[in-house]
Amino acid sequence: MKYLFKNARILKMNGEEIFFGDLIVKDNRIAYVGKSIDHKDTFDRIIQCDGNLLMPGFKNCHTHSPMVFLRSFADDLPLQDWLFNYCFPAEKNLTGEDIYHLSKLAFLEYLSSGITACFDQYFYPHMFIKACKDFGMRSLVCFMPTSYYSKEDMMRMFEKEENDVHSLTKYCFSLHSEYTTSKEEVDLINELVHHYKVPFYTHLSETKKEVDECYEKRGMSPIEYFEKEGLFDFGGGGYHCIYMSDKDIEIFKKYNLSVVSNPGSNSKLASGICDIEKLRKAGVNVCLGTDGPASNNCLDMFKEMMLAFSFAKLKNMDASALPAEEVLKMATVNGSKALNLKDADILEVGKLADIIMIDLSRPNMRPLLNIEKNIVFSGSKENIKMTMIDGKILYEDGKFFVDEDVEQIYQKSQEITIKLLKAVGRYE
Amino acid sequence: MKYLFKNARILKMNGEEIFFGDLIVKDNRIAYVGKSIDHKDTFDRIIQCDGNLLMPGFKNCHTHSPMVFLRSFADDLPLQDWLFNYCFPAEKNLTGEDIYHLSKLAFLEYLSSGITACFDQYFYPHMFIKACKDFGMRSLVCFMPTSYYSKEDMMRMFEKEENDVHSLTKYCFSLHSEYTTSKEEVDLINELVHHYKVPFYTHLSETKKEVDECYEKRGMSPIEYFEKEGLFDFGGGGYHCIYMSDKDIEIFKKYNLSVVSNPGSNSKLASGICDIEKLRKAGVNVCLGTDGPASNNCLDMFKEMMLAFSFAKLKNMDASALPAEEVLKMATVNGSKALNLKDADILEVGKLADIIMIDLSRPNMRPLLNIEKNIVFSGSKENIKMTMIDGKILYEDGKFFVDEDVEQIYQKSQEITIKLLKAVGRYE
Repeated sequence: MKYLFKNARILKMNGEEIFFGDLIVKDNRIAYVGKSIDHKDTFDRIIQCDGNLLMPGFKNCHTHSPMVFLRSFADDLPLQDWLFNYCFPAEKNLTGEDIYHLSKLAFLEYLSSGITACFDQYFYPHMFIKACKDFGMRSLVCFMPTSYYSKEDMMRMFEKEENDVHSLTKYCFSLHSEYTTSKEEVDLINELVHHYKVPFYTHLSETKKEVDECYEKRGMSPIEYFEKEGLFDFGGGGYHCIYMSDKDIEIFKKYNLSVVSNPGSNSKLASGICDIEKLRKAGVNVCLGTDGPASNNCLDMFKEMMLAFSFAKLKNMDASALPAEEVLKMATVNGSKALNLKDADILEVGKLADIIMIDLSRPNMRPLLNIEKNIVFSGSKENIKMTMIDGKILYEDGKFFVDEDVEQIYQKSQEITIKLLKAVGRYE
Repeated sequence: MKYLFKNARILKMNGEEIFFGDLIVKDNRIAYVGKSIDHKDTFDRIIQCDGNLLMPGFKNCHTHSPMVFLRSFADDLPLQDWLFNYCFPAEKNLTGEDIYHLSKLAFLEYLSSGITACFDQYFYPHMFIKACKDFGMRSLVCFMPTSYYSKEDMMRMFEKEENDVHSLTKYCFSLHSEYTTSKEEVDLINELVHHYKVPFYTHLSETKKEVDECYEKRGMSPIEYFEKEGLFDFGGGGYHCIYMSDKDIEIFKKYNLSVVSNPGSNSKLASGICDIEKLRKAGVNVCLGTDGPASNNCLDMFKEMMLAFSFAKLKNMDASALPAEEVLKMATVNGSKALNLKDADILEVGKLADIIMIDLSRPNMRPLLNIEKNIVFSGSKENIKMTMIDGKILYEDGKFFVDEDVEQIYQKSQEITIKLLKAVGRYE
């Protein structure tokens, strides 16, 4: 397909100012971005943008997409009760097919929030990958040690995706966290990380308890532990990263690691506030993720951007901390860096066409003074006029253009949810 | 007009569970709410709700609506610089007509967020009231001492609105704050409060600086000061209320005062966190407001609800603090109490028809497990399918049905914004 977007405001996210112009998408890449000119080619569709804004899609850098079945299932509970008495039991009966269908419900929400790529970590990742391919969602997916994949399974699947140049999906290696992982599991993932020379990600320094207990047990922080083991030798980073020492920050700088901050989850679960402003000023790459629908419960990058600046200003008691433009970078280009999506970071000829259109004709975008600040400070899902992934328009004007009927996705996820909760006596 | 809403989920907000049923609106009041039955009457319009949720509209209990012209004009600046070098100078050239047009832009945003009433405090309130009437927005509006209204003007305008039984609008009396008000102004408002036996509202204990300086100057807190002067003799309350002593809380309980919390403004301006959970547990009525578009910049009750529970859980480091159901009460019935809108608090026969419809067919509302938690934890403006004020549908499926063309409201507010900013050399 060949699309011409006419008369758009364009925010490349490469440091240039917003300008008026055209953008052409050919197949899955950007073929032109610049001034409005008379294009000689023919197009499958010409889209009049009426001054609405084209920009790179949001990168949701920490997700457990299939956990939608736990949304509003058990909330406002103390953390341990929520986790051990509600979430963990309900997850026990999940099948690979459940993962496939539940993932699609999360993807619909990603599209409605302008999210064009996610970084997922959950059970049966090969079924998640299948959902991504059928649906058209771009993702980076983690392999963790499990009972159902041998090392050879993981290597075979990794190489298959890695060698597929057209693939929307890639794998990387991860562990759940320092406090839930055995030495054998650490060694297995370490071996794979070194074999393929790839980055490593994990839940990291999310709670004070986790960090305190690691010091007690190992005499060092979780970050120091993973560094010592060599897991960061090829980069990567951590999700959450709330309780970081100065030494931890130095490790992040040394290995060029990324912090994926999850303010929605961190506040709902009362974990604490990640000091993004301090990390940013130290030169650490910070990006944003929603975490899973059980702990957020919202898969919305506008929410994460809003909480990011709100927490930063309060944490520093300084209204000038973490300016809007930096927050927008975190949600886009910094996320691309963390996901190793160098091809889908900015709007430039040759880049992958992962593009969103921001509706500036809604009252929350007026007056038009500073559009970037408008997006961060007052934007919401109502402003996502279009979401394009890999050159395909999957969402436009509130409607979804995906492989499966939306009502069917809703119905299946509802049935699976009831099945899973009934199995543990949590559905009446 | 007579409307029949069929096959809706209904959340009355009176403590009853959500149920399936019908709701009838006749003129500006609710004429039926209950089971789905065969209604014999004829209707101007029958609305098939398809299981979407009807509930009372949100009450935005602290606004400076006309300040939309300062949205994204000066942000991410230290508080004093923002206020004294940007906001105050830009406000100097405001006219009553500007107020009229700018207010309407804010109202559009209120509709898109399901806000059916606002509590406004700004310049030229009679022009704000005119905008409310022309547009159809319900409001409670504050009179502050100004150079352009004599006491007699204020009394005449107050009585006119008070005696108008069909009016969408009411006045009350207020001061800007303890730290910006002279004794003469305090005495004037005190006289009017006692003359009419009406509540008093003001910006209150918003910053530590304000409270510290009041102790230094008067040997008491701003709340103690206003109590001593008698301003709370007929109730009312304060906006922000971040720095309250136990004695202050006792005063709020004694006079049955309301705290209007403004988490969006308090974080963007780095003022601090209002301890809503403590106030709620002490029995104080707490409701929510967006504050003005300069200090938020978003006029969105979903944002305020989200920040309210996020801050409460973090402030108490307890994931069970301030449950979603309490947050929803704050945004609706608690707000009605603060605004003295007893007739527009819940969905019950005879109540004013200030009703919103929540779209449950969006992915962020699925699966359908606990709808109240879904609204608070993952709701956004995309879920506002309809906003009805005083029996009139002013917003439906993303479109506005108001007195003036939306594009004209946008254009006028843009022109006024440019005029005001140019006048102080802040527009290139």
